[in-house]
Amino acid sequence: MACMDAEAQRSLVRLIRNARIGVLGTLRNGAPNVSMVAVLHAPDFSAFWLRLSRLAWHTQDMALDARVSLVVCESDDARVDPQTLARVTLRGEATSMAAAGPQFESLKRAWLDRFPASAVTFELADFSFWCIHPRDARFVAGLGRTFNLSAAELARAAKGDSCPRS
Amino acid sequence: MACMDAEAQRSLVRLIRNARIGVLGTLRNGAPNVSMVAVLHAPDFSAFWLRLSRLAWHTQDMALDARVSLVVCESDDARVDPQTLARVTLRGEATSMAAAGPQFESLKRAWLDRFPASAVTFELADFSFWCIHPRDARFVAGLGRTFNLSAAELARAAKGDSCPRS
Repeated sequence: MACMDAEAQRSLVRLIRNARIGVLGTLRNGAPNVSMVAVLHAPDFSAFWLRLSRLAWHTQDMALDARVSLVVCESDDARVDPQTLARVTLRGEATSMAAAGPQFESLKRAWLDRFPASAVTFELADFSFWCIHPRDARFVAGLGRTFNLSAAELARAAKGDSCPRS
Repeated sequence: MACMDAEAQRSLVRLIRNARIGVLGTLRNGAPNVSMVAVLHAPDFSAFWLRLSRLAWHTQDMALDARVSLVVCESDDARVDPQTLARVTLRGEATSMAAAGPQFESLKRAWLDRFPASAVTFELADFSFWCIHPRDARFVAGLGRTFNLSAAELARAAKGDSCPRS
């Protein structure tokens, strides 16, 4: 798999920074279950946070099996070929987070900055943050331009560092 | 679960008819794998067709385990609360289709009508159509407005029939 070129790297960073929603894949009775979620990314792409109700199917799923996959896609802009839309699939494990402490408070501020309408969820006991630390990523910059990335390569892209092999 | 009201039904029909892309969930080594796909729906919502390369991960996955989940989402239009975007998750099994015959020819025409840039895939031996017959659907018309639908209820929505219980 080729090392990402600078253009692909910029495309990946733009894609992740702009995406407010993603689609989460969980296991439900051993079968795939996909659902839309709101997403906040860590600046270094080492974590992707979700704020979920424990009543939601995907939350029940993750409580039983932490393995998840999360995709963020460019929005369909009505171009002729939607297969050229950029998208990235992250894979890893999801963990639920404590609802107190300094990390919670700073995450809450960042979340509300991005999703102000979500304030009500901080009044409801059944909502909590979940974190996905991506183990790897598969980035499709467009038709036929696919890059398999380790967590380290994802972090390097976030920093804007060039490929060490180039 | 409530029967869909007429407004929710119109929203579901609009969502499925407009969606050219979806996110497919498959099983990869027993874990969820999600990826973007181009989608064409049958007019009665009884089938959702994909055109895939056998080299793609999701195709390899479905060849080993047919269970899939497919979500189509409204595009993020920068509204304050993206949780109000409409989306529907379909669940069922995927089957690969023959690359010849009257059904193939009519599907090819419909596919090229929607995805003209996909013509090249009809010159390549590794591409084929896959079909998902939804067993059920979970439609989120917006925050807190969720409807679980059987395949029959999905078909009824496609026809624009009102809920028999309303």
